Amino acid sequence: MMRTRPLKVALLGCGVVGSEVARIMTTHADDLAARIGAPVELAGVAVRRTGKAREGNDPALVTTDATALVKRGDIDVVVEVIGGIEPARTLITTAFEHGASVVSANKALLAQDGAALHAAAEAHGKDLYYEAAVAGAIPLIRPLRESLAGDKVNRVLGIVNGTTNFILDKMDSTGAGYQEALDEATALGYAEADPTADVEGFDAAAKAAILAGIAFHTRVRLDDVYREGMTEVTAADFRSAKEMGCTIKLLAICERSKDGTSVTARVHPAMIPLSHPLASVRGAYNAVFVESDAAGQLMFYGPGAGGSPTASAVLGDLVAVCRNRLSGATGPGESAYADLTVSPMGDVVTRYHISLDVADKPGVLAQVATVFAEHGVSIDTVRQQGKDGEASLVVVTHRASDAALSGTVEALRKLDTVRGVASIMRVEGE
Amino acid sequence: MMRTRPLKVALLGCGVVGSEVARIMTTHADDLAARIGAPVELAGVAVRRTGKAREGNDPALVTTDATALVKRGDIDVVVEVIGGIEPARTLITTAFEHGASVVSANKALLAQDGAALHAAAEAHGKDLYYEAAVAGAIPLIRPLRESLAGDKVNRVLGIVNGTTNFILDKMDSTGAGYQEALDEATALGYAEADPTADVEGFDAAAKAAILAGIAFHTRVRLDDVYREGMTEVTAADFRSAKEMGCTIKLLAICERSKDGTSVTARVHPAMIPLSHPLASVRGAYNAVFVESDAAGQLMFYGPGAGGSPTASAVLGDLVAVCRNRLSGATGPGESAYADLTVSPMGDVVTRYHISLDVADKPGVLAQVATVFAEHGVSIDTVRQQGKDGEASLVVVTHRASDAALSGTVEALRKLDTVRGVASIMRVEGE
Repeated sequence: MMRTRPLKVALLGCGVVGSEVARIMTTHADDLAARIGAPVELAGVAVRRTGKAREGNDPALVTTDATALVKRGDIDVVVEVIGGIEPARTLITTAFEHGASVVSANKALLAQDGAALHAAAEAHGKDLYYEAAVAGAIPLIRPLRESLAGDKVNRVLGIVNGTTNFILDKMDSTGAGYQEALDEATALGYAEADPTADVEGFDAAAKAAILAGIAFHTRVRLDDVYREGMTEVTAADFRSAKEMGCTIKLLAICERSKDGTSVTARVHPAMIPLSHPLASVRGAYNAVFVESDAAGQLMFYGPGAGGSPTASAVLGDLVAVCRNRLSGATGPGESAYADLTVSPMGDVVTRYHISLDVADKPGVLAQVATVFAEHGVSIDTVRQQGKDGEASLVVVTHRASDAALSGTVEALRKLDTVRGVASIMRVEGE
Repeated sequence: MMRTRPLKVALLGCGVVGSEVARIMTTHADDLAARIGAPVELAGVAVRRTGKAREGNDPALVTTDATALVKRGDIDVVVEVIGGIEPARTLITTAFEHGASVVSANKALLAQDGAALHAAAEAHGKDLYYEAAVAGAIPLIRPLRESLAGDKVNRVLGIVNGTTNFILDKMDSTGAGYQEALDEATALGYAEADPTADVEGFDAAAKAAILAGIAFHTRVRLDDVYREGMTEVTAADFRSAKEMGCTIKLLAICERSKDGTSVTARVHPAMIPLSHPLASVRGAYNAVFVESDAAGQLMFYGPGAGGSPTASAVLGDLVAVCRNRLSGATGPGESAYADLTVSPMGDVVTRYHISLDVADKPGVLAQVATVFAEHGVSIDTVRQQGKDGEASLVVVTHRASDAALSGTVEALRKLDTVRGVASIMRVEGE
């Protein structure tokens, strides 16, 4: 069974993930060969600067000329773990043009240019695999794309960013504010010096776009994903959540509409009941909940980032792509045949928890309730708390569209008796 | 892209799972065709008696002659959801001989004859897929076999039987005894009239054999799996577990030894800490925890049985097998190259919780402690409770081999001061 000519792998990028990929390819060479049916050989490692990459690798393999490496013509698989849009995008398309298949961990690029990259792969009859782009080591792309290929996915609800889950978990367990929890995350290496991509939800939005595309067999672009960060979540929000038997998580939510003709994708902080499996996802872990017609509710849990976990996902793809090459086949490509409408955030229907600062006088509740009623937003519960002439009103609604809720809030802000809207938080997972 | 000649599917068995497979093949025909790249057509449904199967299916498709159906020669994929060893085994090998690939949900058969069936599939260049055989809709075979193909799995720890989890969860939450909880499970349809296969761990043992084989790339036969049922778990055991901050689950545990050269597989009730993700798996749900070198800890959770969830897994495999046929390739076959030693239960190392009924007089603890020491089993904690001249002694050990523990218990039984060994339970997941 075993072929002796090795499959040649070009590794683009040799940082935290790339160096782990290179290390495991060496230490697990025999296992990889047995599982693929042929040996795999690291044919080159492209880096920006050669200094550090030479440490663990054969110096003769290390190059700063990534383009020349992917153009060599004898490369079977290009593993792209550079990240970012360019030069990764050009290198991947060049790889296809020169006969290689590609394994990528690049969520930003896949979310932005997935359709074009899939088209390039298909045009050249090559594979494009990217399990590592979403939720690190957690098998998610393959289960959605293959295990559930005979089912109809209605909802994907996930914690797909470890940094923000670490911060929110810390706020939940210690009562700390956002800044304090962020500082701890930074000190421990869970947050980058510039945490914008994580805390503003850009990273999660890229993953939501990828997941929605695969789950619904429909192209979902990054611009289609509604995005709200978690920098404004306060310790008071966590106290409110606790009163409701909830906690707060930054969620990526991809949903099919009830009539099945449209989908939505969004990222924002939300309250979820403590009884929901996602509520107990601690620290920097990720977890994704999938709901489908036949399978029901599934959950996938694990480390969402880190060199080794991401390398595990990359190598799983590498084995699959190598096996495909040996058998002359390709794996499932982009599946966008369903071509459903991607609806805007206004169409999203969910429940809301709204905190209002109001004047502490008779008739305020009636006024507020009237505004909700006028916008067709039905109230589930109201709680009033008065102190020193000021009062707060906490309203939890039944399910309503985001558009109706926005209209309600706008009208509430115009009421003389409403001093301010302290917070608006969606309630999910019920 | 779309081929017009349909792929022909023969369905063997039309019970709870089979009828769902047939239903979804009809209602989701367009989606399946788009995902496969060709339409799939139900070419025949083999049943034992034609009466009921005719209800949902075209009567012309229904036959009681399964052998003739798989021998037709124009069948692309045989879906076997009959269960049991025969006639399923002969029908599957006949299918390979007549050019079909096979999707099966048959855990008993795969656990017993997996190697022979894989060999038959390979000899004929056909696929044998069986995601539905373990943990219903939960993607598990594919993640272990493909997503983690570049990683080294060290441990699989799972709740793979919904009936027993329902019973144990009921005992935990209500304080009920085994029989009372079983009666409720039977009344609600979670347990069969004869619950032996579930409560004695036979079902879980078959799944453990399959999981261990895939996780460790080594043949693990059903006989290699140590099996202990959960019929002797008592309400008192749950009280003891609670005192330790634990609950009790029937676990399937597949482990690689520390030196990497051998593996073990076993099924038995065990205490696990409430903080372990498996502790919160409720009702008839299944969940499997996987630990690997690079990915770290992953968990897969979902409905482990039922017509629709199992059908979801079957159809995911059907799509994959059909795609493979169209591209002239086959998916990953059996991977048993590692050929590790499968060690007996005596070699398993874990912790133990032992309840002894002892005479309430001085020196008993010293006697008991001496027996543990003589057998090299180190004690972590001891708790003594005296009442009316009788006393109970609860010993929790450090990690020790099953052989050492068995020797200890045998010696304890011979002590005059030990009236009886009330329970021995392993402690896992720490």
